[in-house]
Amino acid sequence: MTTMKAMTYYGENDIRFEDRPKPIIIDPTDAIIKMTKTTICGTDLGIWKGKNPEIEEVARQKTGQWNGRILGHEGIGIVEEVGSSVKNFKKGDKVIISCISRCGSCENCQKQLYSHCRQGGGWIMGYMIDGTQAEYVRTPFADNSLYLLPEGLNTDVAVFLSDALPTGHEIGIQYGDVKPGDTIAIVGAGPVGMGCLLTGQLYSPATIIVIDMDDNRLEMARQMGATHTINPSSEDVIEKVMQITDGRGVDTAIEAVGVPATWDICQKIVKEGQNIAVVGVHGQAVNLELNKLWIKNLKITTGLVNANTTGMLLKACECSKLPMDKLATHHFKFSEMEKAYDVFKHASENKAMKVVVEY
Amino acid sequence: MTTMKAMTYYGENDIRFEDRPKPIIIDPTDAIIKMTKTTICGTDLGIWKGKNPEIEEVARQKTGQWNGRILGHEGIGIVEEVGSSVKNFKKGDKVIISCISRCGSCENCQKQLYSHCRQGGGWIMGYMIDGTQAEYVRTPFADNSLYLLPEGLNTDVAVFLSDALPTGHEIGIQYGDVKPGDTIAIVGAGPVGMGCLLTGQLYSPATIIVIDMDDNRLEMARQMGATHTINPSSEDVIEKVMQITDGRGVDTAIEAVGVPATWDICQKIVKEGQNIAVVGVHGQAVNLELNKLWIKNLKITTGLVNANTTGMLLKACECSKLPMDKLATHHFKFSEMEKAYDVFKHASENKAMKVVVEY
Amino acid sequence: MTTMKAMTYYGENDIRFEDRPKPIIIDPTDAIIKMTKTTICGTDLGIWKGKNPEIEEVARQKTGQWNGRILGHEGIGIVEEVGSSVKNFKKGDKVIISCISRCGSCENCQKQLYSHCRQGGGWIMGYMIDGTQAEYVRTPFADNSLYLLPEGLNTDVAVFLSDALPTGHEIGIQYGDVKPGDTIAIVGAGPVGMGCLLTGQLYSPATIIVIDMDDNRLEMARQMGATHTINPSSEDVIEKVMQITDGRGVDTAIEAVGVPATWDICQKIVKEGQNIAVVGVHGQAVNLELNKLWIKNLKITTGLVNANTTGMLLKACECSKLPMDKLATHHFKFSEMEKAYDVFKHASENKAMKVVVEY
Amino acid sequence: MTTMKAMTYYGENDIRFEDRPKPIIIDPTDAIIKMTKTTICGTDLGIWKGKNPEIEEVARQKTGQWNGRILGHEGIGIVEEVGSSVKNFKKGDKVIISCISRCGSCENCQKQLYSHCRQGGGWIMGYMIDGTQAEYVRTPFADNSLYLLPEGLNTDVAVFLSDALPTGHEIGIQYGDVKPGDTIAIVGAGPVGMGCLLTGQLYSPATIIVIDMDDNRLEMARQMGATHTINPSSEDVIEKVMQITDGRGVDTAIEAVGVPATWDICQKIVKEGQNIAVVGVHGQAVNLELNKLWIKNLKITTGLVNANTTGMLLKACECSKLPMDKLATHHFKFSEMEKAYDVFKHASENKAMKVVVEY
Repeated sequence: MTTMKAMTYYGENDIRFEDRPKPIIIDPTDAIIKMTKTTICGTDLGIWKGKNPEIEEVARQKTGQWNGRILGHEGIGIVEEVGSSVKNFKKGDKVIISCISRCGSCENCQKQLYSHCRQGGGWIMGYMIDGTQAEYVRTPFADNSLYLLPEGLNTDVAVFLSDALPTGHEIGIQYGDVKPGDTIAIVGAGPVGMGCLLTGQLYSPATIIVIDMDDNRLEMARQMGATHTINPSSEDVIEKVMQITDGRGVDTAIEAVGVPATWDICQKIVKEGQNIAVVGVHGQAVNLELNKLWIKNLKITTGLVNANTTGMLLKACECSKLPMDKLATHHFKFSEMEKAYDVFKHASENKAMKVVVEY
Repeated sequence: MTTMKAMTYYGENDIRFEDRPKPIIIDPTDAIIKMTKTTICGTDLGIWKGKNPEIEEVARQKTGQWNGRILGHEGIGIVEEVGSSVKNFKKGDKVIISCISRCGSCENCQKQLYSHCRQGGGWIMGYMIDGTQAEYVRTPFADNSLYLLPEGLNTDVAVFLSDALPTGHEIGIQYGDVKPGDTIAIVGAGPVGMGCLLTGQLYSPATIIVIDMDDNRLEMARQMGATHTINPSSEDVIEKVMQITDGRGVDTAIEAVGVPATWDICQKIVKEGQNIAVVGVHGQAVNLELNKLWIKNLKITTGLVNANTTGMLLKACECSKLPMDKLATHHFKFSEMEKAYDVFKHASENKAMKVVVEY
Repeated sequence: MTTMKAMTYYGENDIRFEDRPKPIIIDPTDAIIKMTKTTICGTDLGIWKGKNPEIEEVARQKTGQWNGRILGHEGIGIVEEVGSSVKNFKKGDKVIISCISRCGSCENCQKQLYSHCRQGGGWIMGYMIDGTQAEYVRTPFADNSLYLLPEGLNTDVAVFLSDALPTGHEIGIQYGDVKPGDTIAIVGAGPVGMGCLLTGQLYSPATIIVIDMDDNRLEMARQMGATHTINPSSEDVIEKVMQITDGRGVDTAIEAVGVPATWDICQKIVKEGQNIAVVGVHGQAVNLELNKLWIKNLKITTGLVNANTTGMLLKACECSKLPMDKLATHHFKFSEMEKAYDVFKHASENKAMKVVVEY
Repeated sequence: MTTMKAMTYYGENDIRFEDRPKPIIIDPTDAIIKMTKTTICGTDLGIWKGKNPEIEEVARQKTGQWNGRILGHEGIGIVEEVGSSVKNFKKGDKVIISCISRCGSCENCQKQLYSHCRQGGGWIMGYMIDGTQAEYVRTPFADNSLYLLPEGLNTDVAVFLSDALPTGHEIGIQYGDVKPGDTIAIVGAGPVGMGCLLTGQLYSPATIIVIDMDDNRLEMARQMGATHTINPSSEDVIEKVMQITDGRGVDTAIEAVGVPATWDICQKIVKEGQNIAVVGVHGQAVNLELNKLWIKNLKITTGLVNANTTGMLLKACECSKLPMDKLATHHFKFSEMEKAYDVFKHASENKAMKVVVEY
């Protein structure tokens, strides 16, 4: 078999579930993975909507042509073949594919800033190279970018270890310095906000306030561990947070949407000496009220996931009683990929959080 | 009323439950607390057994006489009176008494090393000054050394926030750098080892191995969250730990007894690049195998609790589903103080962990 | 003697060098200091210019009247008298007065966030209470807020330990995480920028770029250790920084002016995975380009000095070969206080950095 | 040319400067370096003295034969050839060779614990594989284990960046948490102790006490920045340190010899709440006085260099005014290798610190 089914992006509002050539090893550090489960990320929807015209531009620059890009940077599978210099994995291994590829030896990789790998890594799958929403995928730098899938781990949770859980954990919880007894607010209850909610509980904050416009998502948040929820369409967010926190504000405000309004909530509810962690992907600049905040001894962080905590999360998830698997609201067969996209595109009306696609 | 009942130490094997004068404010930073619950610490037993002759010596040096020392450095109560410069507390406040008194302004207090306060603080109650096993106690530096007892907190757990939980948390878990997904071993399942077991779970380690000679305590450990237990009287500890950890050793080995044998287990089971946290009170030197360990990139820590995390633990305990209250195996009336001592002295045969004494 | 000379603020553009009553002990934690050297801060100029009308407002609210405020929060002196509960200092001690007063026992003081002391401390001298530009000053919380002045320390440098050096060190260098070998940029070569330049060298960065519009200040910066200087009035700052850094940007960008333009430079020159430290006092909001920065894994910090590193700086300055004393460009007698203000107000044309006033 | 000169170890007291085959690329990640400068480490002397019989044992196990091992793990050179998967270096590049080889992708390498690389890296050159005291050397994992030698860097200092400086910096200074204003003691003024002395100054400690039996080395230490020196053969070390530190002890005690006596000094001079950093290579166990130290809130660290700070040191050394080059007391031609060994073997009588060997 030299062709396979794959969900391919061709341009704005043009994705096609079609036959593509099966990938082959290019570099000796590559592996070919036969996918067993994948999922769809908000970023994939963004590409579909035309937010990333650079995909076609770069492809044309590099190769002089454009014949589409297979989407997806998440999933688990079975190693089908490894390049000559791959040492950590062999044919038949069950693996989790990290959304971040890492050369392991550049300036940034040597300080675990894998998201900014300077030798062709970082977030590239389903973006600068073909991705995981296919029957097979080529993963570069396999030794550094795959994780053995333990027998005992729920395979839906394993899929979320590709991106949603490490992103929430590293950019929201670790950068936000969440500690036992803390009061935190998560602004945005989409998959990454939920990733913050779930991985945040690994550090036992006392109060977790989740803020979202969608009552169904707030209900899910309460089931997953939120101690308080606020819907800005019916409540004054700032007032409510101050009431919950005795007028003190929160220890960590996590921005998990990516628009000016959610940023603004964060800068208004954070306590002096504490943290704002920006997890959202932002399309425009925001207003930073330094006139009020210069004196507040704040730490504000931003970032793309490094996936440097995938290993520790994997171990934590194996044992945890946290309902990591509840992120999966819908399951589809790979042959239903178009339907999966349709449901996820209209997540709110479908009460969808993450859709899991099985092969 | 100017006298009160108090458990008083007079010398080796000589403690007396007797009438003593009720304490009065000495310094403007003092408070007088009417006790409502207290407990007994292993250290109190040590004093009773004669391990701390310095108590009498220092008293004679300072005052030229010796008329006993009221024991105890743990408990909760109600503020009866405050000195003229106390600002944070007032008569009637329900409070947790920290085992560590802190001036707040010396070199060490300014870096939160309260255990080594250089102006008369540190561990002094029930040691260098009269303690909490009485109807009333004078607490120095009240503004820095008391905590408001929240309504919702289980009062047994509040008592453990005086010493056992912060000691386990700071000297075992924080110094030992316990993180989500880690594998840790706690050598010794007494009250402080259990404090490590309980507070350690606030950071979600994946594997918690508890090691003790007492099967009953191992059973309690499993109920409180241990994933594995080992009894060295029937199993080869090192071999068993290596088997559990795929031959790699543990991320953090916590020594919670205070004898050479338990230290030795720790230095043999720790993984390269990881931690040994010594929590036990040691009476003799130990053998440090630097010939084997110099190359292992270890961090070894020791310490007396600073009680600088009492506030965060208090908040974490209010919300936590962890069975902190299970530390309390026996309850007594204050009038039964001698019986409480007797039961705690023979803790193993009485299946006792912490005895809580109510007034 | 019950009166003394003092520089007093009455309102916008109205400061008077006049006779005032000598201060007396109010709280038992107070000390009275006979000043021997002081200086003027940019903040004092701001008050003079009318930027802090809250000074009069708060005074009227609290006391029902307004009779001026003695300016100044910096300086050294000799302890004249101490309150009954002051233990660390006695009459005759030579001391450095910290610009931050700290109760030592509130929630924030217990985590060294002294700038946000919740019991009447923080930055209060020369603001909410009378300050140091007088023959005598009352310092609250003396035990926590004074430092013994060592014999060997240059007394000009000692004056700068009140504010300029700790502010640069804590908010610029420590929050900015400056390390050996780093490349840093300091945007603004006023006294606090220079404080960053001097204290930054304690951590041995390899490249220090100072940016300012004033060529004289850039010349001073080079003498104090800058490896590169840029004047935005004659050079393209961004281009020049990129050229110096091989197109990579800086590890730490320190904003030390407090206006949108200097903030903007910082957000454009920082390298991925690195730091922006905002030290400037800002009067308006700024534009935060989250659309470009969300992906860059940045840490952005703000803050008012905690003066929690005054003690370590004091020891470092005693031994350092760094030209800390060069910050002092002008010296005046206390009787020339008005002249000192005049020179400092026109700092640029007078080539003034810090003016030291001796009694 | 297929043979070259090399200093080869055959067994206890048997090293030979002889012709050996020139190395060739074995793995695609290898590079071949033409050496331009090398040096001799105390470890090389230890091998010569027979302390590492495992060298021959492992060679026999793996290959069934023993034909000697080329010594050396330090030096600089020019890339002669690179394996097919090496991307960061090319023929002609001038490079510094790190003493630690790192695969970059194992569990330990992913957390920068390169010294414990689990896939054939760590300290292997001149030990488990042929080393640098030859005209050519094969360096495994070249992409991760070499550093470009900048034009401006003194080439003697570059040689010390292979091992002596990073070892002192990482295991002494960083693990020992040295900060501006600190008081530190370095016990042992050999090359690694001097590495601590030099790299420690990058963090501006106020007081640096160097302790050694050799007055010449103490004189060198003073020239390199020690503020105090103590010779235990003529002074009571503990007493003298306490006198220098006003009876308080040191913030960081660095053990840089590797015998019980120097360890013992460290445990007796460290201040409560502070650090002992063990840098020495120890051949026997030591006595750890936990009976005195359990209460002192100490951090004790051990370790083999990870060389994860070589890059930052390289940048710091390029600019630093610290006399890093003074470590080199003797220079030899490569043809004089036997003489270089002889001088270094009798370092004390030859007043030798590091001997630099030029090709």
